[in-house]
Amino acid sequence: MSSVNKPGGNYLPVIIHSGIAYVSGQLPRRGEDLLYAGKVGANVDIAAAQEAAALCADLCISAVNHATGGEDRIVQVLQLVGYIASAPGFTQQSQVMNGASDRLIERLGDRGRHTRTSVGVAELPRGAPVELSMIAAVRS
Amino acid sequence: MSSVNKPGGNYLPVIIHSGIAYVSGQLPRRGEDLLYAGKVGANVDIAAAQEAAALCADLCISAVNHATGGEDRIVQVLQLVGYIASAPGFTQQSQVMNGASDRLIERLGDRGRHTRTSVGVAELPRGAPVELSMIAAVRS
Amino acid sequence: MSSVNKPGGNYLPVIIHSGIAYVSGQLPRRGEDLLYAGKVGANVDIAAAQEAAALCADLCISAVNHATGGEDRIVQVLQLVGYIASAPGFTQQSQVMNGASDRLIERLGDRGRHTRTSVGVAELPRGAPVELSMIAAVRS
Repeated sequence: MSSVNKPGGNYLPVIIHSGIAYVSGQLPRRGEDLLYAGKVGANVDIAAAQEAAALCADLCISAVNHATGGEDRIVQVLQLVGYIASAPGFTQQSQVMNGASDRLIERLGDRGRHTRTSVGVAELPRGAPVELSMIAAVRS
Repeated sequence: MSSVNKPGGNYLPVIIHSGIAYVSGQLPRRGEDLLYAGKVGANVDIAAAQEAAALCADLCISAVNHATGGEDRIVQVLQLVGYIASAPGFTQQSQVMNGASDRLIERLGDRGRHTRTSVGVAELPRGAPVELSMIAAVRS
Repeated sequence: MSSVNKPGGNYLPVIIHSGIAYVSGQLPRRGEDLLYAGKVGANVDIAAAQEAAALCADLCISAVNHATGGEDRIVQVLQLVGYIASAPGFTQQSQVMNGASDRLIERLGDRGRHTRTSVGVAELPRGAPVELSMIAAVRS
């Protein structure tokens, strides 16, 4: 859970400014390997999508930890935006995102509680079923 | 307009940090009842979608008011992101979002003026036609 | 590159609060003219979509410059969110967004480095292939 994935383009995984960490959209991958692919409600079921969302949450935490130079400097997760690649008619994006939310709270306790927006999108980079971005307050 | 909807998952409706309120994505519902459902440009017309967007804007304000513990502590709405569940070929997301923007300005005056991003998405939770997230500056 | 487009609805192009500039979603247009239209992976190829994304990045910078009342007051770009209107099966949203990222870094140097989220959406306002929103730290 401590690996930090290299960005898939010309950008940074995290920027910290005035105690706020902005985290780039995380796909469910380990290094270059995308661990989940497809559309939720078609070839990816809710349980697998929740695992993918939880992995994205882990990667958000890892990215912040790496950027702050130490474990456990997240003061409060503030905002989570979850994009779910959705088959036509799939409307359980919230259930999928509970996989990410539960993981954040399991790992960070009350500091992991957050606001959240879940949307169903047409396509995600590399065919991922879930992408997650985060804003969090951190201490230096 | 003063009700606050319970989140549809394991997250908080609002978090306030350093004078900034982050508001979770709001669906056009009253309590557990989704008041609008479907795709804009198919079974939801622009007028109904504007009403749905205005309701989401009301819910964003209510959520902030509830979190601050008092009416009227919004200093400035900063960012509105509107997701419009769109039928193929529907490209009038901005008109739909004017329903939300007009409502914010009607209720908050200049403090309700905001930046905005409107996008058309494939699917939204529970089949909602509109989802709205907000960031606002608040005083304690 | 110095023009600022009028918003396509009842909202502001930029709001600055506590040294943070929130920029409304920018479409690839000059004044009222949308310069690119269609879906990436169908009638818009990656090269054209990258140009469109670069134009959106230019417009984000112009909007901030206009709001701060001077050139070159961006301290650091913090967050870029790119929405790519995607044909079914198109998953190279990251390549498209490199058009925006490269432009920001080309124009602003290290101050243009940013976090990024790229998603593929069903439809965008006016049929645009790309929409870009930005958050940046600015000095007054």
